[in-house]
Amino acid sequence: MSAGIDGRVLLARLRELGEVGRDARGRLVRLAASDADRAGRDLLARWLQGAGLEVAVDAIGNLFGIWQAGAGQPVMVGSHIDTVIDAGIYDGCYGVLAGLAVVEALRAEGLVPARPLAVAAFTNEEGVRFAPDMMGSLVHAGGLDLAEALASIGTDGTVLGEELRRIGYAGSMVPGTIRPAAYLELHVEQGPVLEQDAAAIGAVADLQGISWQRLRIEGRANHAGTTPMALRQDAGHAAARIVTGLRALAEGGTVATVGSLRLEPDAINVIPGAAVLTVDLRDPDEGRLAAAEAALSGLVAEVAAAEGVAITTERLARFQPVRFDPALVARIEQAAAKRGLPVRRMTSGAGHDAQMLARICPSAMIFVPSRDGISHNPAEYTAPEALVAGAEVLLDVVRGLLGADRGPG
Amino acid sequence: MSAGIDGRVLLARLRELGEVGRDARGRLVRLAASDADRAGRDLLARWLQGAGLEVAVDAIGNLFGIWQAGAGQPVMVGSHIDTVIDAGIYDGCYGVLAGLAVVEALRAEGLVPARPLAVAAFTNEEGVRFAPDMMGSLVHAGGLDLAEALASIGTDGTVLGEELRRIGYAGSMVPGTIRPAAYLELHVEQGPVLEQDAAAIGAVADLQGISWQRLRIEGRANHAGTTPMALRQDAGHAAARIVTGLRALAEGGTVATVGSLRLEPDAINVIPGAAVLTVDLRDPDEGRLAAAEAALSGLVAEVAAAEGVAITTERLARFQPVRFDPALVARIEQAAAKRGLPVRRMTSGAGHDAQMLARICPSAMIFVPSRDGISHNPAEYTAPEALVAGAEVLLDVVRGLLGADRGPG
Repeated sequence: MSAGIDGRVLLARLRELGEVGRDARGRLVRLAASDADRAGRDLLARWLQGAGLEVAVDAIGNLFGIWQAGAGQPVMVGSHIDTVIDAGIYDGCYGVLAGLAVVEALRAEGLVPARPLAVAAFTNEEGVRFAPDMMGSLVHAGGLDLAEALASIGTDGTVLGEELRRIGYAGSMVPGTIRPAAYLELHVEQGPVLEQDAAAIGAVADLQGISWQRLRIEGRANHAGTTPMALRQDAGHAAARIVTGLRALAEGGTVATVGSLRLEPDAINVIPGAAVLTVDLRDPDEGRLAAAEAALSGLVAEVAAAEGVAITTERLARFQPVRFDPALVARIEQAAAKRGLPVRRMTSGAGHDAQMLARICPSAMIFVPSRDGISHNPAEYTAPEALVAGAEVLLDVVRGLLGADRGPG
Repeated sequence: MSAGIDGRVLLARLRELGEVGRDARGRLVRLAASDADRAGRDLLARWLQGAGLEVAVDAIGNLFGIWQAGAGQPVMVGSHIDTVIDAGIYDGCYGVLAGLAVVEALRAEGLVPARPLAVAAFTNEEGVRFAPDMMGSLVHAGGLDLAEALASIGTDGTVLGEELRRIGYAGSMVPGTIRPAAYLELHVEQGPVLEQDAAAIGAVADLQGISWQRLRIEGRANHAGTTPMALRQDAGHAAARIVTGLRALAEGGTVATVGSLRLEPDAINVIPGAAVLTVDLRDPDEGRLAAAEAALSGLVAEVAAAEGVAITTERLARFQPVRFDPALVARIEQAAAKRGLPVRRMTSGAGHDAQMLARICPSAMIFVPSRDGISHNPAEYTAPEALVAGAEVLLDVVRGLLGADRGPG
């Protein structure tokens, strides 16, 4: 009776969507609310409609494909399709397209759901162009005011609300209208854990807390040849001291990253007068995360005093660690075991839309292995059979939730 | 009999030229061969013609105003009018406009020169958009092949030769056609020495050597949340170690600067996969400069090994320290003394067109104080009376050279 997941179709769609948004250098760059994002959304919407789903878009651009069936709150599966700069093809897209594959498999089985099923693609999960990341799901969960989110200024100076209107994805539905009975997100691990343990499935029980800050350092621009070293207020040197100093803070499970650093005026023969850098701190333990933030503040004060520069700090995002729904996590473990797939409970190192949905409904995540733990990189890769196995576990869990008359747990 | 320098006109022209090339943020940005550079050149050419000078432009865009008089090789005075990003109004422009003021003063005296006098504005002295810096004077002196210079790729991906044609300043004259009997360059000090010594005039006897290199660091882009610190190949962290490590190399008169640093992909939640930075090393002693370059190579190798990244180094410019013509330096000291202006011999910390002209003719420079030693910055300032005093010393030295039947020495 079970046709199961059509792996060929799932993989072909992953590859096709992965070609949408290639830049002149061949890099996959599908930043939120860009022209490339519009092209990806158009393709996804066509696929959702082709599967007989009703497509709805809310005011923050979250895109849903809804299988109207049964009664009560829907089961929701999904992720995002926006990408980082020079991305791989799996991150986010896999969870959305696997959700679509689950719908098609259930239809092929002739299943009549007891409740609706919704496939979601949330806006701006990556947060590369607009901050904060996971914005669409955060707004959906009521954690961020819609107007504030739409007013977000992009790294290119654009305004998110205007960009969403420009690409035709500023929808009419009020964010949060679709209140799920449960949310499941299937995702590539983006880390080395499953590969090292030779596990096929990760049942994600919790998720790291995240702290994003932007630092602006004001020094004094001056001539590189005539200014004695002792008289310099070099914003670039101050920034470098913070980057190296951060390494010392990253211990006991905390990870610290400076992903963006820009100098002004950024000229070879001018001592940098200003520097802007971002700091990304993560830890599954709130206490350690808060301690790392405090240590960063100390480092900033120490460098400002030593270098004779002024440093201002702006908080871009702050999320506490999240514990997912134990009953859903157990369902994932049981489904994996039934299919004879090695499964392990784990913590997510990355932020995901599921952590926002967890605020309003029972939520959990399913991970599949990432080769060498690489992601946010063109080398991101998960074996086809591993991708299909993950989708089949999602299928089994969703089938169980749809069959039930009430939510999980 | 001597009308002397018309200070009001000189200062008004400095201010007027200083308004050409203001960007949307009000910053003075007149990069070589840009639209702003064209506007500045057009204004200068009108002023030169207004003073009865014959305007000539060579194939690298060097702009000359020539007073055809007497016989033999001309005396040349000048500097440049291109600027850095967010520049002050004096750097370069002062030397060119003071040269024009000298011509007007000599005409007012009714002087009949024994040899021609040329006012020069050399192309791309700053080297911000195109490398190397001091390019126009270097080509004029035969130190850089014309075709190679015209093929220089700008930081914005443009080609210098095409940009010069586009702005109408790719001239027909062969570079180096005008071979001076002597070259004098009047410039703001861009350092603190004259101010600290309460000297009005610097007789510049020599000039620092300069080494410019560009480093490219190749690491591995990866997810900021899921990649353990120990497994990272963070190009940004490697760059920061080089920036801080450079401080240790900058001793005994060497100055070291990282003015430009860019990360790829430059996203908050992605470990930098690549970094490109520039290193500017200067020292008046060739031995110490070479030692600093060797120490940098050692630092680069050490960081590459420690961080697991690949680092490639590209030489952008390398000039040995320069000794100016002792007879010309003596003439400057005598002229200052005659006017009762405190004068001191000094070393130039900055690179100047004079160091290139010194390859083909007796050359020297005259400095005036820079307040707080600031330059390459909107706060760059020299008092009006100090600017006029410097121009009057230039006038006296030029008058002496023009009166002579032969070159100095």
